[in-house]
Amino acid sequence: METFSVRTSAFKQMVKITAQVEEALARLGVREGSVLVYSPHTTAGIVVQEGADPDVARDLLGRLAEIAPRQRPQDRHIEGNSDAHLQTALVGNAQVLPVRDGRLALGRWQHVFLAEFDGPRQPQVWVQPL
Amino acid sequence: METFSVRTSAFKQMVKITAQVEEALARLGVREGSVLVYSPHTTAGIVVQEGADPDVARDLLGRLAEIAPRQRPQDRHIEGNSDAHLQTALVGNAQVLPVRDGRLALGRWQHVFLAEFDGPRQPQVWVQPL
Amino acid sequence: METFSVRTSAFKQMVKITAQVEEALARLGVREGSVLVYSPHTTAGIVVQEGADPDVARDLLGRLAEIAPRQRPQDRHIEGNSDAHLQTALVGNAQVLPVRDGRLALGRWQHVFLAEFDGPRQPQVWVQPL
Repeated sequence: METFSVRTSAFKQMVKITAQVEEALARLGVREGSVLVYSPHTTAGIVVQEGADPDVARDLLGRLAEIAPRQRPQDRHIEGNSDAHLQTALVGNAQVLPVRDGRLALGRWQHVFLAEFDGPRQPQVWVQPL
Repeated sequence: METFSVRTSAFKQMVKITAQVEEALARLGVREGSVLVYSPHTTAGIVVQEGADPDVARDLLGRLAEIAPRQRPQDRHIEGNSDAHLQTALVGNAQVLPVRDGRLALGRWQHVFLAEFDGPRQPQVWVQPL
Repeated sequence: METFSVRTSAFKQMVKITAQVEEALARLGVREGSVLVYSPHTTAGIVVQEGADPDVARDLLGRLAEIAPRQRPQDRHIEGNSDAHLQTALVGNAQVLPVRDGRLALGRWQHVFLAEFDGPRQPQVWVQPL
């Protein structure tokens, strides 16, 4: 397994990590097959989405904030970040991706993102060949 | 990796692809293990859900349309399909499924669906043995 | 593949299954690599989330109930559990997890949960090495 970390600068932020995952594949010597991209956090997920227009990630975060509002009177978790836990559970904390010729075999518009929902933080990403 | 394509005829549609995935398994010669079913699109996901009553998929699409309304005044993505990007991120663009005896080892009521959220289109599905 | 079952006692409930998954790993003799934790049900998913404070799961279920209300006038599925199908599709019915030294390699606060959305029931969990 290879790991790297990402530094976020906002409360909620999606950071493109396609290049870092491919650097991890190179260190692992993985040329073909599949790879697990895993966030070991409970408030940061891994998302595969369009990377060409940054407004896609922007709209996604805006819509996720409406689905998971910051505070509900009924929330009891003492850290007050139940919105971030829900957002992570909704997008998922990991993705399995195909690898071809040492690179991620993604669709034309797809990029891999680390989505931090309770930042700014420095979340880790684990890359494990399958 | 094997691929096939699906033709959708509505704006949002779930298409059962269990049989096509199993045909891909046969072409790949996969008898045991697991398989990655992957949508290379940013507006089409892969969903495992009940396939016996078509109203399950119908209700699912209706509810996803309420969670991800067609347009928000705050949306900025120029293509105007941020609802489809969110719906894809929520259900996921890929699933890992167990294989036994050359067939998908699904639960009794489970089927695999391609969910196109910005159609009609002709999305591709990638099938990669793990 | 190894399987085990979980008994739930409420309508909607998240049950920690980290220990049972690791017992299945021991029976399978898996020491390193990855594992697929799979729910063969259409109303029960697998979630990786914080396990230290039970209020995280409680808030998560409360928020998922708001996103997927019990009944919509437009629902047509005859069993009346379209909320549970949606909740399962949102969190996912399976997770791929890294394994190290015979144990799940999770983040510090992560636990694996079976989330039953239409209980009480006795859902099964399948554990398949990758």
